[in-house]
Amino acid sequence: MDSYDKLCDRAAEVALLSSTASLLSWDQEIHLPPRALEYRGSQLAWLSGRAHETWVREETGAWLEEAGEKVAPGSDEAVNVERWTYDYERARKLPVELVERSARLESQAHEAWKEAREKSDYSIFSPLLAELIDISREKGERWGYAECPYDALMESYEPGFTASEARALFVPLAAELAELFKTGASDLPVSKLPDGPYPVEQQVEFNRKVIEAVGFDFSRGRVDTAVHPFSTTMGPYDNRITTRFNEEDFTFSFFGILHECGHGMYEQGLPAEKYGTPCGGSVSLGIHESQSRLWENQIGRSRAFWEYWYPVANDHFPQLKSMSLDDFVRFVNKVEKSFIRVDASELGYDLHVILRFEVEEKIFSGELEVEGVPSFWNQRFKELIGLDVPDDRRGCLQDIHWSMGGFGYFPTYTLGSLNAAQLLEAVRQRVPNFEQELKRGETGNILDDLRRNIHAHGRRYLPKELIEVATGNPPAPAYLLDYFRNKLKSLMG
Amino acid sequence: MDSYDKLCDRAAEVALLSSTASLLSWDQEIHLPPRALEYRGSQLAWLSGRAHETWVREETGAWLEEAGEKVAPGSDEAVNVERWTYDYERARKLPVELVERSARLESQAHEAWKEAREKSDYSIFSPLLAELIDISREKGERWGYAECPYDALMESYEPGFTASEARALFVPLAAELAELFKTGASDLPVSKLPDGPYPVEQQVEFNRKVIEAVGFDFSRGRVDTAVHPFSTTMGPYDNRITTRFNEEDFTFSFFGILHECGHGMYEQGLPAEKYGTPCGGSVSLGIHESQSRLWENQIGRSRAFWEYWYPVANDHFPQLKSMSLDDFVRFVNKVEKSFIRVDASELGYDLHVILRFEVEEKIFSGELEVEGVPSFWNQRFKELIGLDVPDDRRGCLQDIHWSMGGFGYFPTYTLGSLNAAQLLEAVRQRVPNFEQELKRGETGNILDDLRRNIHAHGRRYLPKELIEVATGNPPAPAYLLDYFRNKLKSLMG
Repeated sequence: MDSYDKLCDRAAEVALLSSTASLLSWDQEIHLPPRALEYRGSQLAWLSGRAHETWVREETGAWLEEAGEKVAPGSDEAVNVERWTYDYERARKLPVELVERSARLESQAHEAWKEAREKSDYSIFSPLLAELIDISREKGERWGYAECPYDALMESYEPGFTASEARALFVPLAAELAELFKTGASDLPVSKLPDGPYPVEQQVEFNRKVIEAVGFDFSRGRVDTAVHPFSTTMGPYDNRITTRFNEEDFTFSFFGILHECGHGMYEQGLPAEKYGTPCGGSVSLGIHESQSRLWENQIGRSRAFWEYWYPVANDHFPQLKSMSLDDFVRFVNKVEKSFIRVDASELGYDLHVILRFEVEEKIFSGELEVEGVPSFWNQRFKELIGLDVPDDRRGCLQDIHWSMGGFGYFPTYTLGSLNAAQLLEAVRQRVPNFEQELKRGETGNILDDLRRNIHAHGRRYLPKELIEVATGNPPAPAYLLDYFRNKLKSLMG
Repeated sequence: MDSYDKLCDRAAEVALLSSTASLLSWDQEIHLPPRALEYRGSQLAWLSGRAHETWVREETGAWLEEAGEKVAPGSDEAVNVERWTYDYERARKLPVELVERSARLESQAHEAWKEAREKSDYSIFSPLLAELIDISREKGERWGYAECPYDALMESYEPGFTASEARALFVPLAAELAELFKTGASDLPVSKLPDGPYPVEQQVEFNRKVIEAVGFDFSRGRVDTAVHPFSTTMGPYDNRITTRFNEEDFTFSFFGILHECGHGMYEQGLPAEKYGTPCGGSVSLGIHESQSRLWENQIGRSRAFWEYWYPVANDHFPQLKSMSLDDFVRFVNKVEKSFIRVDASELGYDLHVILRFEVEEKIFSGELEVEGVPSFWNQRFKELIGLDVPDDRRGCLQDIHWSMGGFGYFPTYTLGSLNAAQLLEAVRQRVPNFEQELKRGETGNILDDLRRNIHAHGRRYLPKELIEVATGNPPAPAYLLDYFRNKLKSLMG
């Protein structure tokens, strides 16, 4: 067996361990009996430890070197060796001691965060947050970076994306979005959904009907109910998504599941026969999020989409008969101020995200101390969203990410919005009768286009390159801003 | 670290792998998307291969020897080393090549069996059955035995139980049971359950109410719906059972879940702190089945039990109000002839089992050829149950066991019936006001007694020893026969 084959075997073993861990985590979110939590933790620790340890063995490095000399440039093999080498080198930069210390700290911090959020008491969380920042800085130093440790942290979620790029992109974007948001929130006519109940059973059926039509493949995936909506993959033919229900508002679960369905269809669109190798994997969170937001927002909140689906929704929820299609479209596109990111209107969402980026960036550049986070948050929130944050529970304590050491994760949400807008514009150019098809409930050509131009490539390109390959243009914020401007205009008119 | 500690660590790793595999199998039965089956197979193969390979390493043997010299006789440590040594030696007797060949054959045979059963065509399955018998004989030869290879096969499920013992026990038992069954089937007054529907939601609620009251701990277990009811454990605090529903007859799911609940409570009663070692494991299938059958039948079909629960059932299923308690008790104890084992009445069930034992025993002693199975089956079925088998689908093709190479498994069902009767008699002697408590829906003292006398011991004793320890008497068939005679008498009277 030559080195490349050995690498494939090893990668397959790592994928097998990781996919098994994914099932265990999925089960933990949905089914696990309360007292089983501790043992599940040890099963997961064993699996991830073993996956890591298997991959970072010296011999992997030797095989990578040997294989790298033999593969044909541009071939799948070459892509795999390149990405594997990147993963290998990055993984080896963190000593086991640091990984274990970090895992212990995160589990402690997560508990402290839950208590802090419940009591809305930042002081319970802040000492742990300070430690998390220190350990993340330590990781950043070990991974290495061009300008600042925050670059190295973002790299974990969005390869090739740096703090200075983010700043250059997000600062002007925030100003423009805040302006649009203000206009939307004050000038758009208000539309109210008819009273519930919207029975869960009917919601389940309607959701399923839509996501099946849109292209989620139930022969290789499933939908379940979970407190926090998510998407996870546990094998080349097994992607699972979740949602949750609100009997007063069926759009709550609907847009949740459509979002996760976008993630799921990306996973289902990756080349299954390359599962476990970079050519069969997803690129980055920013690309992943582009797929979920494209279906949730660009498609799912469009008038054309609902021209077909609103009558179907009427069949499931008879009270909708008292609401016109236009009013409904206005409702699902309402622009409201909210304290909580996950409740934010589409137009306000990225302002929430950019605020978090600003906090992270200032922390890691040393401009902001842990103690200063709440006051910076509240002041900036007022500027961007226009609300006074009443307590930290509805402010800087609302998100789980930092408690898990996930610094650098937030920016990928807004990258997702930007990518989605740019991608859909390209798809719209390529798919003939785009609007007409959408009005007939036909989205197969849109999905096919994404399959060909995004999904099929796996990790062949870096995120930025992939956007350029798929749209013909480098990533740019104009698409998202145009999309929002057009939407506002049509909702006003 | 001394050898005993090393063994504990290794056993913990094996338990972690096996419990992870249990979750994957559970998920496969309940949730797995169809196209994910193949990859799930490779995940399971890897986990079980790795568990086996980890355990049978040479060094395990060396540690066992060293530890064996140091442990105090009678201590948990001594018990563990003794059982571990037994497991180790048995596992090492099968070469990997044989294990793999066997797994491949089983998966082939399983497919053939499904087709054969569907088409009721024995000739599709018989060539594979012949191969399965050959490979099982080969395993038996390698494991070793006193009298015949079938002994070695039964040993996998019921340590210390041999073919000659089974013969001595089952042959006279079959004659007596057949007599009782005949009387019951012809003389008992017929009782019919009021028409459905019995809504699934109400069944779920009633089932949960009962098994929770009986002692199934939902903080460390759960109930789901599956095509084939089963119980499985995936950690010291995670036992999961399943059932299925029939809207025309709520007792179908009820006795199914009560049966699995008995299995589940045994697992939940094993000392959790010894999880992964023999002292924390279950003894044998015959003991396991005693726990399920005790709750399903001895308790669950008793008049005293329903004195408390029938009014509750009436609240859930109003149509029961037209049926008296006595008629209901007669209904759940009806004696009917049936072709299918899993549909059999309590009194007929063991006849179905003994027939299968007879087939297996004759095959492995060379008295019966594969070709002769259907005719032997049908003739013997007529003698025992009194029905003419119309086709092999309802005859020798009905069970999954042989298709998975599970020769020697069936006898443990009847051992379960025998053990349950003997155990309950002992519990009845020890629990004051047994009958009165049962009539008040109080079964806590029964469960406590089983916890102390069966569950707490783990694998300390061999099955036969355990029955003697727990009841004061060696296993004997009289208890079951007395139980059936008394039941018939009271149902007639």
